[in-house]
Amino acid sequence: MTELRIAVLGVGMMGADHVARITERTKGAVVTVLNDYFPEKAEALAATIPGSRVINDPLDAIADPEVDAVILATPGPTHEKQLLACLEHNKPVMCEKPLTTDVATSLEIVKREAELGRKLIQVGFMRRFDREYEQLKGFIDDGVFGQILVAHCVHRNPAVPPSFDSSMIVKDSLVHEVDVTRFLFDEEITTVQIIKPSANPGAPEGLQDPQIALFTTESGRHVDTEVFVTTGVAYEVRTEVVGELGSAFIGLDQGLVRKHRNPAQQASGDGRKVAGIWGGDITPSFVERFGDAYDNEIQRWVNAVRRGDNVDGPGAWDGYAAAAVCAAGVKSLESGKAETVDMVSRSSIPGA
Amino acid sequence: MTELRIAVLGVGMMGADHVARITERTKGAVVTVLNDYFPEKAEALAATIPGSRVINDPLDAIADPEVDAVILATPGPTHEKQLLACLEHNKPVMCEKPLTTDVATSLEIVKREAELGRKLIQVGFMRRFDREYEQLKGFIDDGVFGQILVAHCVHRNPAVPPSFDSSMIVKDSLVHEVDVTRFLFDEEITTVQIIKPSANPGAPEGLQDPQIALFTTESGRHVDTEVFVTTGVAYEVRTEVVGELGSAFIGLDQGLVRKHRNPAQQASGDGRKVAGIWGGDITPSFVERFGDAYDNEIQRWVNAVRRGDNVDGPGAWDGYAAAAVCAAGVKSLESGKAETVDMVSRSSIPGA
Amino acid sequence: MTELRIAVLGVGMMGADHVARITERTKGAVVTVLNDYFPEKAEALAATIPGSRVINDPLDAIADPEVDAVILATPGPTHEKQLLACLEHNKPVMCEKPLTTDVATSLEIVKREAELGRKLIQVGFMRRFDREYEQLKGFIDDGVFGQILVAHCVHRNPAVPPSFDSSMIVKDSLVHEVDVTRFLFDEEITTVQIIKPSANPGAPEGLQDPQIALFTTESGRHVDTEVFVTTGVAYEVRTEVVGELGSAFIGLDQGLVRKHRNPAQQASGDGRKVAGIWGGDITPSFVERFGDAYDNEIQRWVNAVRRGDNVDGPGAWDGYAAAAVCAAGVKSLESGKAETVDMVSRSSIPGA
Amino acid sequence: MTELRIAVLGVGMMGADHVARITERTKGAVVTVLNDYFPEKAEALAATIPGSRVINDPLDAIADPEVDAVILATPGPTHEKQLLACLEHNKPVMCEKPLTTDVATSLEIVKREAELGRKLIQVGFMRRFDREYEQLKGFIDDGVFGQILVAHCVHRNPAVPPSFDSSMIVKDSLVHEVDVTRFLFDEEITTVQIIKPSANPGAPEGLQDPQIALFTTESGRHVDTEVFVTTGVAYEVRTEVVGELGSAFIGLDQGLVRKHRNPAQQASGDGRKVAGIWGGDITPSFVERFGDAYDNEIQRWVNAVRRGDNVDGPGAWDGYAAAAVCAAGVKSLESGKAETVDMVSRSSIPGA
Repeated sequence: MTELRIAVLGVGMMGADHVARITERTKGAVVTVLNDYFPEKAEALAATIPGSRVINDPLDAIADPEVDAVILATPGPTHEKQLLACLEHNKPVMCEKPLTTDVATSLEIVKREAELGRKLIQVGFMRRFDREYEQLKGFIDDGVFGQILVAHCVHRNPAVPPSFDSSMIVKDSLVHEVDVTRFLFDEEITTVQIIKPSANPGAPEGLQDPQIALFTTESGRHVDTEVFVTTGVAYEVRTEVVGELGSAFIGLDQGLVRKHRNPAQQASGDGRKVAGIWGGDITPSFVERFGDAYDNEIQRWVNAVRRGDNVDGPGAWDGYAAAAVCAAGVKSLESGKAETVDMVSRSSIPGA
Repeated sequence: MTELRIAVLGVGMMGADHVARITERTKGAVVTVLNDYFPEKAEALAATIPGSRVINDPLDAIADPEVDAVILATPGPTHEKQLLACLEHNKPVMCEKPLTTDVATSLEIVKREAELGRKLIQVGFMRRFDREYEQLKGFIDDGVFGQILVAHCVHRNPAVPPSFDSSMIVKDSLVHEVDVTRFLFDEEITTVQIIKPSANPGAPEGLQDPQIALFTTESGRHVDTEVFVTTGVAYEVRTEVVGELGSAFIGLDQGLVRKHRNPAQQASGDGRKVAGIWGGDITPSFVERFGDAYDNEIQRWVNAVRRGDNVDGPGAWDGYAAAAVCAAGVKSLESGKAETVDMVSRSSIPGA
Repeated sequence: MTELRIAVLGVGMMGADHVARITERTKGAVVTVLNDYFPEKAEALAATIPGSRVINDPLDAIADPEVDAVILATPGPTHEKQLLACLEHNKPVMCEKPLTTDVATSLEIVKREAELGRKLIQVGFMRRFDREYEQLKGFIDDGVFGQILVAHCVHRNPAVPPSFDSSMIVKDSLVHEVDVTRFLFDEEITTVQIIKPSANPGAPEGLQDPQIALFTTESGRHVDTEVFVTTGVAYEVRTEVVGELGSAFIGLDQGLVRKHRNPAQQASGDGRKVAGIWGGDITPSFVERFGDAYDNEIQRWVNAVRRGDNVDGPGAWDGYAAAAVCAAGVKSLESGKAETVDMVSRSSIPGA
Repeated sequence: MTELRIAVLGVGMMGADHVARITERTKGAVVTVLNDYFPEKAEALAATIPGSRVINDPLDAIADPEVDAVILATPGPTHEKQLLACLEHNKPVMCEKPLTTDVATSLEIVKREAELGRKLIQVGFMRRFDREYEQLKGFIDDGVFGQILVAHCVHRNPAVPPSFDSSMIVKDSLVHEVDVTRFLFDEEITTVQIIKPSANPGAPEGLQDPQIALFTTESGRHVDTEVFVTTGVAYEVRTEVVGELGSAFIGLDQGLVRKHRNPAQQASGDGRKVAGIWGGDITPSFVERFGDAYDNEIQRWVNAVRRGDNVDGPGAWDGYAAAAVCAAGVKSLESGKAETVDMVSRSSIPGA
């Protein structure tokens, strides 16, 4: 079978990572077209990828006859138009979050795809492809913990770009816990509340960080998440689910464990009588933490497209639901109250 | 130096445990007087403790000249009168929680002790004497994590007596996290909200379990606690604090670690391809989990009384503050909203 | 660039696993030829792999013009002849352990390849491609632990086939620790001693299991390994290295951690007062434990062959050295004494 | 019941620690007599212990009518004479290891006590009173792991005094693993071999450190121990037992777990991309690691003496057996071979 020819739109950190992945590790796929708002970035990358070329207009790239499928790693505001082009040209598309930047346009995308009568859109919630999340989902579905009642999540980043504002913590970071909740529990989130603890003195002026998010789901389950994006420490993601028969934890630290003298103590000359420490490293960013999940996600998507299924993972509806929950979250960030998630019912859109 | 002569009032599970502790392990103390609402229980125990005798009236027991200090392990509703008797007779008293059963009488106790001009009352929040909580407090006070912003707590019991109702989850279980928060952060809790997730199907009809409690402190810190008292699993208590420079976890499982075949798999004949499991036991109750903390608490209290300090740990004010927070919690359990903690300021009571 | 066309010789468990790997996950490679001692097994597999065909004679399969490279997953006794054919036809070959079944023929293979003046042979010691071993090697090479003095290894299997005898524990199981030692320390093993503890009552009659192996390296380092292949529990592999500045552990258990009631206790009605257990699963076999390492090994080998390097990992010399150490181990199994490893020096074979 | 009046002989680090323990924590005991080779040390300590006085001759201290029982924390060479005095005066004695400094005199002590027809001597192998060792022993005795086949031990100290020589590593450090083996397995050790890996460059000139000790027991079990006393890191003690049905580990690190930036990285400006580390502290010395075990040991010994049992733990025979095993170890340190332990059989000494 011939290899899947992929156009990658947007070759920033995420897009370039996908290009490298497909070129070096993804079986059955090849990057044929590259595109970026800055053409010279796309050209520089294309020069290193034999068989690839640059197309400057993203809609032309999508329409190109040498493109079988599309990866969108472009900025969110451009997604709507690009997704519609993919639907129009009947091209399977792997769209990095967000689906679109607002609830209304996300819903519009859901409806357009539903009208087509076939799924073409997958959304890049990579945690569903992480081994531990997959295991946890398997145990839950097998009933090992009985009915799940509560979940606790932690999402910590060492730092964020200077442009990050308080609502982006909801839309860019918390959105992963929104999808994890929906994935693990197979139901929608109905209310969101954002709590604002005393802010990190090390965070940029005006950034509400950390934030505590509370979700209620349709069946009344409770999920709380600490989102803290300026810890200065590492990239830490952790989930605990608690059910009627037991509980489970993923994201605990382990791996190679070292023992050595305490360098902080040696440096400070602190007389505290502790000679040695034990422990290990924490991943510095999502790239190391979820690298295998990304590989898995893209490989399974390529396989699905090649066998005609087009999607193997979260779809447009999941992107819309995430957008709706995040919109309620941003509203709560201002109101300080629990806000109801405003969503249409899935059954109201046949084919969604 | 002569041994401290102690009267233990109430010889149920907790009181009998203290009697055994003092008789077998506490240096410098001896139980001379026993008392219980059921005199035959006190008599049966006294028969095994050389040098002890029973006094049937608790106030007589407190007043007895062969009693230097008192431990109250009686039901909460009797505490007020017994504490006042201890103050009147100038007897140091170690009072198991609660101080009294309502905020007004707790405040009254605080005021009476303050008027005396000397501390006589210690309250039995034993976690402050647990090695890990002590370490955590030490690291926080040393500034290792910078300014603390958030804490996450978990408090799980395998089961509770049939008489347990939803408000007792707040007053009997959550009260420990109230004290832990006040101890670790050295400030008061200002608001409490109780969230009611879908209830455990295995819990008694009408019991709201689990509960999620949210605290805000004076300086704006956020603390959340899962209280779940019918897990059927074990006694699990865990605290994580998150600060501007790092975080710390206590109550993680470890100790002796076993590896063996999976008995669940063997029993069920489940074909899931997992040959073996690793792990260890979890403590069945607070007795095993905090046994050392209780020993430590009583030894340090005895030492303090013998050297004339009378108190070495949480006092009447801490009992009053816990009562005020729990009252707001019970109110929130009904209202579903965040409730403000109604407390007088400490400085308004000179000597408190 | 065209895909690497691979012949897989031997389609038992290991060979079939490689066929699946290359077909589903390895980028840039395709299986074109299959071969097995039982032609119908090869035919059955070929029917599921588009573009593959069966060649019944292994030497014909190697020589076939539609074969760029070879994977040997055939029984050890056939390796010598097949490796020589690969050398003769200038075909890169990935040879599952052992290189050959005795030291003399292994040395002969080393010499023949050296005479060719180019590397064609890689040996399947997959642990070198495991993430934790790679990390450990990196820390050692960076000097994080200073000079390494000692290592402790554990290698446990739940069960072995009935045909397994005591010397196969050395040659099939311990051989991995031989390679790990040589890989981590970059030097040869000079003496081997096998200690025979009281045998597992659950092991087949006559099988010396467990065995304790002691290695001394050229520079005087000590390595001990417990090899225990009938534990009934799981597949467990662990390494600890100890250096002048610290130590490190890999292969500790973690991942998803569950808490639940103790099923053994429930099944037995045992009154021991332990309500709950915590812990996780252990991998049942090398397939789960080292699945990622195999993927990594084959991908890097394919990449190396495609770019003309042919080898990216342990080579014929490593296969020879392992054979020499295992031969000394088998001798010690009988003598009970430390036996010297009888090896030529690498420098005596230019190009080895 | 009156308190047990104890004479503590030797008030160096260990003896002073026992004095503090008995004075502050041990229920039912009081220090009445102190003795040391340097009288001024004993006097200085006595000044802080109400009710205690100094007796300069150790034999007079033992004989004193105000002494009910004796703790020997004197140098090993003085033990023989002091133990004989205890036997003569019928005084229960808790003797810090070693029993005596050679096998012959240890055997003589065993015989003398046996002739008396009652146990008076306990030896200070405190690990038997550590909670994890007790648990491990309990699991073994309950048959949880079936027949035990192998054990692996690690014993690491950060540093030793300048006077420490290679044989002291056997007699002072390894001796604990000798006792642990005999305690866990309830049988004697029959052969000992000391292996000498390349020495730690940071160890004093001439000190063979680390050492690897191999024990064989009567029933053929194998125990290996790494003893490494100049690690510069911490005090680490670990034991793993491996049986036919499973295995168990004690001495793993846990407790309070911190996460923070990597201070080594910050100090060095190392560009390695690791932002944060997780882990905890390791105990600096045996005092912290086994503090609770010492408390437990002394309390149980005091209780045993008060109720007339005199001994609750390892006795003179255990001291003799340890001496015999260590003598074989020292011999092996020189010969490099496995040496047979030369011991009389216990049944040859009625009452031993």
